[in-house]
Amino acid sequence: MKNKLKIIKIGGNIIDNENSLDQALKDFAAIKGDKILIHGGGKLATNISRTLGIETKMHEGRRVTTEKELEVVTMVYSGLINKKIVVKLQQLGCNALGLSGADANAIVSEKRAVHEIDYGFVGDVKQVNHQTIDVFLKNNLTPVFSAITHDMKGQLLNTNADTVASEVAIAMSKNYETELVYCFEEKGVLQDIRNPKSVIPFIDARLYAELVQRGVIHTGMLPKIQNGFDALQHNVAKVIIGDSSAINNDTVLFTTLVL
Amino acid sequence: MKNKLKIIKIGGNIIDNENSLDQALKDFAAIKGDKILIHGGGKLATNISRTLGIETKMHEGRRVTTEKELEVVTMVYSGLINKKIVVKLQQLGCNALGLSGADANAIVSEKRAVHEIDYGFVGDVKQVNHQTIDVFLKNNLTPVFSAITHDMKGQLLNTNADTVASEVAIAMSKNYETELVYCFEEKGVLQDIRNPKSVIPFIDARLYAELVQRGVIHTGMLPKIQNGFDALQHNVAKVIIGDSSAINNDTVLFTTLVL
Repeated sequence: MKNKLKIIKIGGNIIDNENSLDQALKDFAAIKGDKILIHGGGKLATNISRTLGIETKMHEGRRVTTEKELEVVTMVYSGLINKKIVVKLQQLGCNALGLSGADANAIVSEKRAVHEIDYGFVGDVKQVNHQTIDVFLKNNLTPVFSAITHDMKGQLLNTNADTVASEVAIAMSKNYETELVYCFEEKGVLQDIRNPKSVIPFIDARLYAELVQRGVIHTGMLPKIQNGFDALQHNVAKVIIGDSSAINNDTVLFTTLVL
Repeated sequence: MKNKLKIIKIGGNIIDNENSLDQALKDFAAIKGDKILIHGGGKLATNISRTLGIETKMHEGRRVTTEKELEVVTMVYSGLINKKIVVKLQQLGCNALGLSGADANAIVSEKRAVHEIDYGFVGDVKQVNHQTIDVFLKNNLTPVFSAITHDMKGQLLNTNADTVASEVAIAMSKNYETELVYCFEEKGVLQDIRNPKSVIPFIDARLYAELVQRGVIHTGMLPKIQNGFDALQHNVAKVIIGDSSAINNDTVLFTTLVL
């Protein structure tokens, strides 16, 4: 039987709020057994870019990662936020190891090809070196990933943190029974955005299509759920969407994706 | 017989110059066998602090690391510079693993006590967890340290990179025959600062005292040499000061410290 492994992704809204972050890290540190944390960026990078006078370049409503912005997200995600999380986890007795995808060649990506839109220095994940991550876990280290990856040709690339989480979960499923938790500010996917308790307990592909059509699921939640289904289709045992109380299933209110 | 291990510290002036950095990383990647890189910060953190409007606080001529400045050095040293070095080494085929002292609890420090001067968030190294660093080396990973450490109580601390290098070298000497190279912009300790070839080949404690008295060695070179002698006194096999051609002894021009 495979060992269990929990992969937790915490989003920007949790990172922006000191109390939410502290609570999420306590819940994460309390996981018994092997675990991996993947974190997004939050508003800090945008604020620092603005203060540094770096213009945010948009193309048809979507952000473009210029060379200067890549420097800022590398500083903020892999430096400030990653080390802040690592030092807090160390304090909680969790032997955290902060990583970008370039470190130990853990996550290799490819610069997104230019079609209609040039997204700049944005990478799509090509390969997760699960053997190396396994070495860390076997030595009681807890990997903490920022969503910066590399192309093995000397280029760092900004990568979607939800996708990094699902790709790491898929790769680790070769040797582990893997559970993926998308942890954000709500208790789950909500039927009614004005009612925080209207959590939809289970979403399968059919309900998902219906919810998208009815406009219940939109914007930021769409790629999260798509990544979640992708993970389930590639041998990830369980995918959950909820707040940090869902990390250790200390609540009954969260959304489980089912195939 | 112990395996050999080279510990290379590259200073700020090398990091500030793209060509010098590339050359130093090529020389570092070419080292056969186990190796560790420790890097300083360079002028980037000062420039970014200034652009962000963070006032550099000085106390009797020495810089104080305020909370805001600690955030900047964490971003710049452990984020931007560390990942830039890691991604370049990966390109060169060296499986680099970027680390701060908080990662894997590798380097524990203590906030410097306030006597006449309050240096702010500055740490003095207390413990280097050589077993964990050994795990990385045994798995063919090359640790790349920024000089940010932690106190295990949730506080990151800015630490002198020369000291981090000597402390890591001393700790690793338990299991390795360790060589420490302080790599900077000159070919070694110079007899005459205006003559770049006037390298002093050997410096022992007696000559060191004489050179200090004559004013040949001063400012930034003083702690480097003191750290070097400290390393020699604690079982480090060899300490060299030179430019990056000294990393693989591809030159005869460098300074060797001798007890």
